[in-house]
Amino acid sequence: MHSDRPAVTVIGLGSMGSALAAVLLERGHETTVWNRSVRKAQALVDQGAHLAATPEEAIAASPLTIACVLDYEVLHAVLDPAAGSLAGKALVNLTSGSPEQAHEADAWARSHGADYLDGAIMTTPPGVGSSETMFLYSGSHAVFETHRPTLASLGDPLHLGTDPGLASLYDAALLGLMWSTMTGWLHGTALVGTEKTPATAFTPVALRWLTTVTGFLTTYAPQVDAGRYPGDDATVDVHAAAIDHLIHAAEARGIDNALPELLRSTMERAKAAGHGSDSYASVIEVLKNPADDE
Amino acid sequence: MHSDRPAVTVIGLGSMGSALAAVLLERGHETTVWNRSVRKAQALVDQGAHLAATPEEAIAASPLTIACVLDYEVLHAVLDPAAGSLAGKALVNLTSGSPEQAHEADAWARSHGADYLDGAIMTTPPGVGSSETMFLYSGSHAVFETHRPTLASLGDPLHLGTDPGLASLYDAALLGLMWSTMTGWLHGTALVGTEKTPATAFTPVALRWLTTVTGFLTTYAPQVDAGRYPGDDATVDVHAAAIDHLIHAAEARGIDNALPELLRSTMERAKAAGHGSDSYASVIEVLKNPADDE
Ligand SMILES: NC(=O)c1ccc[n+]([C@@H]2O[C@H](COP(=O)([O-])OP(=O)(O)OC[C@H]3O[C@@H](n4cnc5c(N)ncnc54)[C@H](OP(=O)(O)O)[C@@H]3O)[C@@H](O)[C@H]2O)c1
Ligand SMILES: NC(=O)c1ccc[n+]([C@@H]2O[C@H](COP(=O)([O-])OP(=O)(O)OC[C@H]3O[C@@H](n4cnc5c(N)ncnc54)[C@H](OP(=O)(O)O)[C@@H]3O)[C@@H](O)[C@H]2O)c1
Repeated sequence: MHSDRPAVTVIGLGSMGSALAAVLLERGHETTVWNRSVRKAQALVDQGAHLAATPEEAIAASPLTIACVLDYEVLHAVLDPAAGSLAGKALVNLTSGSPEQAHEADAWARSHGADYLDGAIMTTPPGVGSSETMFLYSGSHAVFETHRPTLASLGDPLHLGTDPGLASLYDAALLGLMWSTMTGWLHGTALVGTEKTPATAFTPVALRWLTTVTGFLTTYAPQVDAGRYPGDDATVDVHAAAIDHLIHAAEARGIDNALPELLRSTMERAKAAGHGSDSYASVIEVLKNPADDE
Repeated sequence: MHSDRPAVTVIGLGSMGSALAAVLLERGHETTVWNRSVRKAQALVDQGAHLAATPEEAIAASPLTIACVLDYEVLHAVLDPAAGSLAGKALVNLTSGSPEQAHEADAWARSHGADYLDGAIMTTPPGVGSSETMFLYSGSHAVFETHRPTLASLGDPLHLGTDPGLASLYDAALLGLMWSTMTGWLHGTALVGTEKTPATAFTPVALRWLTTVTGFLTTYAPQVDAGRYPGDDATVDVHAAAIDHLIHAAEARGIDNALPELLRSTMERAKAAGHGSDSYASVIEVLKNPADDE
């Protein structure tokens, strides 16, 4: 393939790594790939990818290597034997893990003369390549700036800071928000479902409501930073009273109440800590001080 | 006041009732008001509202009465003595309560010859009057159609069905989604806050991510209705593995983990029920079948 887009190597061709490599090829990057199970490389080779025989050969082929394997244990199993080819290269690691694992990988890569950028992919494979999709990065600013055009082929690249653990930390925080939101939505869907409302009827109303809720978050963010929570829209007391309607309605209909009950007890803890007439944002004070420590 | 907008009565001038009456006056409705504490009516009277001496007189003044008081106990305390003036009138009740309370109020109103519509206000007082704001209604379709222009002055009116309990049921379900989302956001904000990321830096990323999450909900809603949950984007197994990163990261930073731990155990229950390779939407099967009943 002839191309003026920078050459790039992708290590790991699971569902995510394959999506990354396919988009890089589509955008005209000269792309070298490696995967443990070589059969997963075939479709990409048919689209013009170079197949490397070893991770070492793969890293040697391009100034930039993107790694996306199952976890950090696999990352080290694959890359340790290839450390000799890392000097002077840039390594972008999109494998999911903890901030601590990102720190270790950063130290390991530097010790072999490579510049390290950690990343988190905020989508499933079909979302790769869309400029709507966030790719979060942290660590080497030089890698980010030098390879930004390549990274921008994959999605919208955001650099969060030079601490390599930040992308993983944001990833964990954002996934937690996702699970909370999805589970809250499923609970509401189950509740209205008992009265024969289909999920496809409830969900458009829920999505519209989420727009209103995002307005609350925008209002509350500066309150959190200031550590002051004026309760001029709706207080913790008001929320704590209202959640009883939800709990009773769900109980009467045989729906699991563990989530609303946990939310109620969290609100009760905020009240006990003196936040009854503060806004809901004051609940963060309870989350910062776990029950066990009180 | 001279106006071609229909006359309307508002009973209850707390923060919400006052907002409702103020918007109705602004839009040119001839507005009669009543409140237990008469001083709260003064500002509205200054803007042209008629002050009724009793709830009975207030109801008699307009074809449509909107009630918005603290709770159903107060609603009955205020309206029972005024039941004699209800015949031939429309009563729209925006007091928050349970579906069961809405059913009782509907039966009570009908027994006095009034047509009843229940409602839920999906905003705080400053959002009243915006066409973005949803007002959910259920019960008499005739009241909804006849008084739609008046209801549209307050926000975007949606009629969910003739079962008067539906607005309260949706309200509970939507508030549950709100508390889940707000608490998940506060947890993530607390987590990144330990690494000195301000809430005002994290929140724009979180809001952008919520747009991606709403895409997942749109994908999952028809799966819920079909009772089939193809795990072709991300499976419960994958989510259950990923939540450990969140729990460890939060634990290492001294953040309360009750919410992510509950989410993890819910996922584990979905796995135990055979949904490991299904999509996250399959978690609804667990919520429909509380742990106690298993
Ligand atoms: N899928 C998503 O929606 C998504 C979203 C965001 C982030 N991620 C992250 O992206 C990373 C990859 O996910 P994925 O969905 O692509 O997973 P996957 O489809 O299961 O692929 C796993 C990859 O790891 C390799 N691997 C596993 N064990 C190995 C071993 N012992 N030695 C060598 N290679 C091994 C696999 O090679 P073989 O092909 O030889 O098995 C494959 O390349 C994960 O960290 C995941 O959390 C995924
Ligand atoms: N505020 C919100 O953001 C919001 C949002 C959605 C729904 N709602 C719902 O709207 C309803 C009203 O809320 P609000 O915010 O307006 O509450 P509020 O400011 O506390 O007002 C309460 C109202 O109830 C009346 N009341 C209380 N006890 C009474 C009694 N024993 N006898 C007669 N009247 C009594 C009060 O009259 P006095 O003035 O004489 O005390 C006042 O009119 C509630 O059901 C609430 O859940 C509120």
